[in-house]
Amino acid sequence: MATITDTKWVYDFADGGREMRELLGGKGSGIAEMTRVLGRELVPAGFTITTEACVEFMRAKRQEPDGMAGEVAEALSRLEQHSGKRLGDLEDPLLVSVRSGARESMPGMMDTVLNLGLNDESVKGLARITSNDRFAWDSYRRFTQMFGNVVRGVPGDEYEEAIKAAKAARSVKLDTDLGVDALKGLTATFKRIYTEHTGEEFPQDPKHQLELSIRAVFDSWMGDRAIAYRRFNRIPDDWGTAVNIQQMVFGNKGDTSGSGVAFSRDEVTGAPEPSGDFLPNAQGEDVVSGARTPRDIAEMKDWMPDLHAKLMEILGTLERHYKNMQDTEFTVEEGRLYMLQTRNAKRPAQAATRFAVDAVSEGLLTREEAMMTIDASGLAALLHPAFDPKAEFEVLARGVNASPGAAKGAVVFTAAEAVEAGKEGRDVILVRPFTDAEDVAGFHAARGILTSEGGKASHAALVARGMGRPAVVGVDALTIDVKAGTISVNGTVIHAGDRIAIDGTKGLVTTEDVPLVEARVDENFKTVLEWADELRTLGIRANADTPHDAQRARELGAEGIGLCRTEHMFMEEDRMPKMRAMIMAHTVDARREALSELLPLQQGDFEGLFEVMAGLPVTIRLLDPPLHEFLPNLAELSTQVEHARMAGADDLAELEVLLARVEEIHEENPMLGTRGVRLGILYPEIFEMQVQAIMRAARTADKPPHPEIMIPLVNYEHELELMRELVIRVGDQEGLHEGTDYTVGTMIELPRACTTADRIARHADFFSFGTNDLTQTALGFSRDDAESKFVPTYLDRKIIDSSPFETIDVPGVGWLVQLAAWLGKEAHPGLKLGVCGEHGGDPESINFFHRSGLDYVSCSPFRVPTARIAAAQAAITHPA
Amino acid sequence: MATITDTKWVYDFADGGREMRELLGGKGSGIAEMTRVLGRELVPAGFTITTEACVEFMRAKRQEPDGMAGEVAEALSRLEQHSGKRLGDLEDPLLVSVRSGARESMPGMMDTVLNLGLNDESVKGLARITSNDRFAWDSYRRFTQMFGNVVRGVPGDEYEEAIKAAKAARSVKLDTDLGVDALKGLTATFKRIYTEHTGEEFPQDPKHQLELSIRAVFDSWMGDRAIAYRRFNRIPDDWGTAVNIQQMVFGNKGDTSGSGVAFSRDEVTGAPEPSGDFLPNAQGEDVVSGARTPRDIAEMKDWMPDLHAKLMEILGTLERHYKNMQDTEFTVEEGRLYMLQTRNAKRPAQAATRFAVDAVSEGLLTREEAMMTIDASGLAALLHPAFDPKAEFEVLARGVNASPGAAKGAVVFTAAEAVEAGKEGRDVILVRPFTDAEDVAGFHAARGILTSEGGKASHAALVARGMGRPAVVGVDALTIDVKAGTISVNGTVIHAGDRIAIDGTKGLVTTEDVPLVEARVDENFKTVLEWADELRTLGIRANADTPHDAQRARELGAEGIGLCRTEHMFMEEDRMPKMRAMIMAHTVDARREALSELLPLQQGDFEGLFEVMAGLPVTIRLLDPPLHEFLPNLAELSTQVEHARMAGADDLAELEVLLARVEEIHEENPMLGTRGVRLGILYPEIFEMQVQAIMRAARTADKPPHPEIMIPLVNYEHELELMRELVIRVGDQEGLHEGTDYTVGTMIELPRACTTADRIARHADFFSFGTNDLTQTALGFSRDDAESKFVPTYLDRKIIDSSPFETIDVPGVGWLVQLAAWLGKEAHPGLKLGVCGEHGGDPESINFFHRSGLDYVSCSPFRVPTARIAAAQAAITHPA
Repeated sequence: MATITDTKWVYDFADGGREMRELLGGKGSGIAEMTRVLGRELVPAGFTITTEACVEFMRAKRQEPDGMAGEVAEALSRLEQHSGKRLGDLEDPLLVSVRSGARESMPGMMDTVLNLGLNDESVKGLARITSNDRFAWDSYRRFTQMFGNVVRGVPGDEYEEAIKAAKAARSVKLDTDLGVDALKGLTATFKRIYTEHTGEEFPQDPKHQLELSIRAVFDSWMGDRAIAYRRFNRIPDDWGTAVNIQQMVFGNKGDTSGSGVAFSRDEVTGAPEPSGDFLPNAQGEDVVSGARTPRDIAEMKDWMPDLHAKLMEILGTLERHYKNMQDTEFTVEEGRLYMLQTRNAKRPAQAATRFAVDAVSEGLLTREEAMMTIDASGLAALLHPAFDPKAEFEVLARGVNASPGAAKGAVVFTAAEAVEAGKEGRDVILVRPFTDAEDVAGFHAARGILTSEGGKASHAALVARGMGRPAVVGVDALTIDVKAGTISVNGTVIHAGDRIAIDGTKGLVTTEDVPLVEARVDENFKTVLEWADELRTLGIRANADTPHDAQRARELGAEGIGLCRTEHMFMEEDRMPKMRAMIMAHTVDARREALSELLPLQQGDFEGLFEVMAGLPVTIRLLDPPLHEFLPNLAELSTQVEHARMAGADDLAELEVLLARVEEIHEENPMLGTRGVRLGILYPEIFEMQVQAIMRAARTADKPPHPEIMIPLVNYEHELELMRELVIRVGDQEGLHEGTDYTVGTMIELPRACTTADRIARHADFFSFGTNDLTQTALGFSRDDAESKFVPTYLDRKIIDSSPFETIDVPGVGWLVQLAAWLGKEAHPGLKLGVCGEHGGDPESINFFHRSGLDYVSCSPFRVPTARIAAAQAAITHPA
Repeated sequence: MATITDTKWVYDFADGGREMRELLGGKGSGIAEMTRVLGRELVPAGFTITTEACVEFMRAKRQEPDGMAGEVAEALSRLEQHSGKRLGDLEDPLLVSVRSGARESMPGMMDTVLNLGLNDESVKGLARITSNDRFAWDSYRRFTQMFGNVVRGVPGDEYEEAIKAAKAARSVKLDTDLGVDALKGLTATFKRIYTEHTGEEFPQDPKHQLELSIRAVFDSWMGDRAIAYRRFNRIPDDWGTAVNIQQMVFGNKGDTSGSGVAFSRDEVTGAPEPSGDFLPNAQGEDVVSGARTPRDIAEMKDWMPDLHAKLMEILGTLERHYKNMQDTEFTVEEGRLYMLQTRNAKRPAQAATRFAVDAVSEGLLTREEAMMTIDASGLAALLHPAFDPKAEFEVLARGVNASPGAAKGAVVFTAAEAVEAGKEGRDVILVRPFTDAEDVAGFHAARGILTSEGGKASHAALVARGMGRPAVVGVDALTIDVKAGTISVNGTVIHAGDRIAIDGTKGLVTTEDVPLVEARVDENFKTVLEWADELRTLGIRANADTPHDAQRARELGAEGIGLCRTEHMFMEEDRMPKMRAMIMAHTVDARREALSELLPLQQGDFEGLFEVMAGLPVTIRLLDPPLHEFLPNLAELSTQVEHARMAGADDLAELEVLLARVEEIHEENPMLGTRGVRLGILYPEIFEMQVQAIMRAARTADKPPHPEIMIPLVNYEHELELMRELVIRVGDQEGLHEGTDYTVGTMIELPRACTTADRIARHADFFSFGTNDLTQTALGFSRDDAESKFVPTYLDRKIIDSSPFETIDVPGVGWLVQLAAWLGKEAHPGLKLGVCGEHGGDPESINFFHRSGLDYVSCSPFRVPTARIAAAQAAITHPA
């Protein structure tokens, strides 16, 4: 860095560029870049005081650095020369805006001051040259208000009170109804308020106005709110902020003036024609406020054909320069076009894929560049029906957008009713306070799921996403009374059978009959996915438990099954009684007998899976959940038993036996209890049956399948060693060979497994990171509880940026994943590494897994396209 | 290592020593060491074939290494020369034993073969020289049986059947009733059995017998059971086993022969006079079997005064050599004394401390050496009453020895009854299936605690240890029916009010009135503890919640309070309703109102603590447990509400409101739910009240206290930052200063806190490792569930060596502790590090914490003496 005396403190927009973001801030470097691309004539001119000046100002205890004032004066004089106007001129005064601009946009910093340069005299010149008294005085009124409030901290409500009084005195309702005299009077009042608060006259010298505004921007960097924000977001104090001074332009100077917004391509469809709106004789806010109906940008051709052509050319230039679809703002001042802002356009998934494909065929972008323009998460919307974007409706309540897509149907409160309705072909929405394993059949039958509890990682969310059912969960405002069959919400009562609609993409609930639009998987989408497959290095698998899910997963591009949860097979209606009989058994023999009835069913499950997957790898996790999940809920059953007792019911004895067993296997923290490999150690016969079913199904398959048998929840090397022996023993009995016909591996989902991954790897052909449970244990966050109980507050208070169940927590969970990946590979170089937690479908997490050197991710089938794109993007940003 | 041809395969006992354990195995090096100390005349001679010979045997596919046979022959010939007897001699045959001996004793290895050297001829010589036909033939009978079974694998039950038949034929009951003829017949039968199984004649050549026995030892190293054991215990296969061949000596050769056991000091009191038992004309097993009543060792003076004097001298020599109290076995064969074994004597705590103090004053040991002779865990027994060691009684059931000491009293089934009984001065034992927060008052009132569920880290165990109440938990055999007021156990039914006795040191339950002996804290104990304090570098604090506990902690030597659990203060009878009112409140204001009533009570608690601790540091943990712990159990309350509903009870509405709130705050996994700092983030007013109470109590204390305010369950740096701000804000309001008047720190009890400890350390004055919760999360083990549900099976199957809740799991939990300690100190060198989990009272864990560079451990008051000794031992074995 140069010595302070050599430092340049001020840069004209024409001398900067986007590579100078640290020095000029985000806003300053952005305007400079646009100036560089379009030339000085098309962007309102101005200059930036650097972030270094701010840092020096703080270091010197609020003293501007030597030379800064001189540089500002010179830059101002260049600006006057360029614009042909002078600050404070009595005829045609130059007006400027003053804005802060740090490296990143930051709340708490000084806001904009507009129209600086007006005073008691220049306001008259402005009125004359615009032939618009009201405009001139309203501008001056606004300036006195903004300057007092923003620069000198005069309380805003005093100004608001004065405006209210002026309107009352004239019996008018809107600010715009105030005439020139009223505005003159208000301006005088505002100057008096200023003097009362500051003890000074309102500054009439524009250079003094400017000087005070610049200091105010610097001071605001050290304001309480900005400091608090930086501390929350870990932004260093010594970044400092830049100050941008820019010439004001006005679209409301008559019929040859106007304002508008323009996209370089159609912002809804992505079609290669610019779109947008404009309004003659209007300022930018008039276009977006909706007070006047704006006109389509195509009509600009009739109004000012040359400028329209110029604008079209500019949009092309910007798109080529920024290599992305642009969203711009422009103003026409007395026949002259100014571009105020350009940024990458937000766009729906359909437009995103179309732009990507078109841009490549136009030669605008390489495939890699095109890939980077796509929002991977947004793609899921293409796979599900959605509320018609044009529909208007009243939102009844908002909740967590747990599974994308929209659905409509009659309210039912139990899985059984949903199943019944499904058989009769009726559309229903399953509404529950929360869901558990017993409700899964209802998910199949319902069009959508709505719960009042839980978050994105709740049971309802996970199952719904897995099946591609739209779901809104955690809608606090709903009071669901299952017994009474009612939902109460903000005074409205909805009964069973009433029709509702939900939007799982946005988390909305409504009672209105919103029209739906169907899923739109088009050619562009397919093309983009094909490119992604060529670019990515990470494998993509799906979590699927049934042939039906597996089929969908393959259609959506999955290269294998990364997680088949065998417990889901036991939840089905015909299996549950057998499963319960197994759990109720108190001896090994009785358990074996119950298991022998489950064996052929389980074998059938695997046969179906293997057939669909036709030789692709299928990772099968042996029984994982605590057994209580297959039995009734303790509190409910206790109530039922007490009821039966008091009523002298016939089935009391039977219920009591059931209750005794439920109490016996009850655990305080089932997540940390008897599940996963612990079941295999305590009841090896259960795992034996499952392995037998896998081996027999594998033997009968047409195409040799590749089952990867996965042991969940391993902590100790020796647990895996014992279970591996069990698998190999059964394999030998069934005549299959370890290593060729099947492999054996483990979930890595406990912190201890991560710190001892080298030992565990010696007995594993593969690791699959169970990042859901690893998040639960590493953070001590119960998935079922955290998202409904305290995660929302944590997000509000910015303790976390996103739920750790959505995006992997890198410093904790990610750290453990990398440790285990490293230890595992060191001890066993051939070890295959994958992820089968929900994070496998989250783009940011996928990027992390790519960087961590994993071989594949596995996610629910509907997230496979998102994962393919995200994996390609990761490979582009982090090549091997 | 020398080349194989140079290798020496056989060592005489006289040529080895304990430093050669790897080569000679544990047994061989031990005998050699004793030979070195006492000389060759006093230890039956023999030799050891090295572990390297075994390794070479395996490598060469069961081929003895070159030269080994020759060395064995030479060693045998030296043995014959030394003993003056020859193997297979017809007059006075040399008999030897053959035993395996690996570095560590190992089940599955070949057991002992005794009396090798007997055959159809030498047995007659033995009969003649001992003038004891029966002895000779019984010896031969035993040898044929052992050799066949142990060396050649002939099934043992065939021999047993033959013995049974022989006894039946003669209508006698005991083996010892079989006469010479019967034994001769049996020997013939055994040889026939041998031939049937092996197809060979029973070997008559003693050298061949020896050769086969040596091969059998080597082979047994590769036997299935030994391999399985090694794999379980991670012992490498290439350690190999040694083979020990030793001359047999006989104490049953008449009146000038005998056998005995002798301790170098009194084994019960530690008094410096040797003790022990002996029997003339008897073998070793006769002394311990109890078939004949042995005589006191002092009486040996009358029997053989010279040998008695010699033995006394030997005991002193051994004690001086091994620098520890010795437990020996000896045999006198025809007037000649042989020492068969010596080992460090097991001794009760009282004897241990006496020996340590005496040994130092005698100049036998340094203080450091003396300290290392003490079993730190055993010391807790000195602080509690115990069953009289001389009492005989029938054990009704066994369980987990959860809290040391013995107690007697009448059975009560509820805390309320215990409290009632306590007021009336009646002794009761509180019996529950398991306990929870509501039962704590009952612990105070009862003499002891008995539960059918839970392990050493269950609620009952933790609370009982904290209060010093004896407790036996997890007694599976008990069926406790609280409603009926009965305990059923193995057919016996105990009713409320029946008297029982429990021994929490050993985990016993009995209905007998066993006499108790009181706690015995004597001068030796105090002296040893004083030495420990001089030697140790680790600080010792106690976990204490009340002035009463704090007082006891100080008396037992605690240097501060390492954990005051403020929630225990809210469990008391007068607080609970206020606490519940706070939880039932739905608004901040209502909560604040309830809290304002708790404030003076909480302040009083701290005043009491500060007074007792008189300026010593007091670490106060703000509210940690999930709020549901203060409300009734969900299932029980559900039952109650249903009952009230069916019965039309008056309090139904009230109960329903309570149930609604219990359901609202119910969590699936409360351990991973809304607790610790999460409560402070959601309800800062709770923490504010607690901090206010601390500050006010600190201000009013006579001696300036050192409160260390501890925030539990921190994951994110920012959680601690926010809570630290809260504490400092309240401190400022109360006029106290951070850093001088109080400090602020955090529990480290989540894996994520460990991996991000550097960030967290920036906001912490201290870390206290909550190793209980860190164990729960790192291993995914719910403390409440693991110990009763699957840890016992894990111990049985040797997946783990000890419960991770007792002794810290080093590869997982310990790894995280060291990581966090390192990261924390790197980021904040002044950071103080302590441990406040239960592991703080476990000697092995204390050793680990010492090695990890922690500043202190904190444990329940009654474990403080153990911790002081363990810390001293750690400092001796691992000096800084």
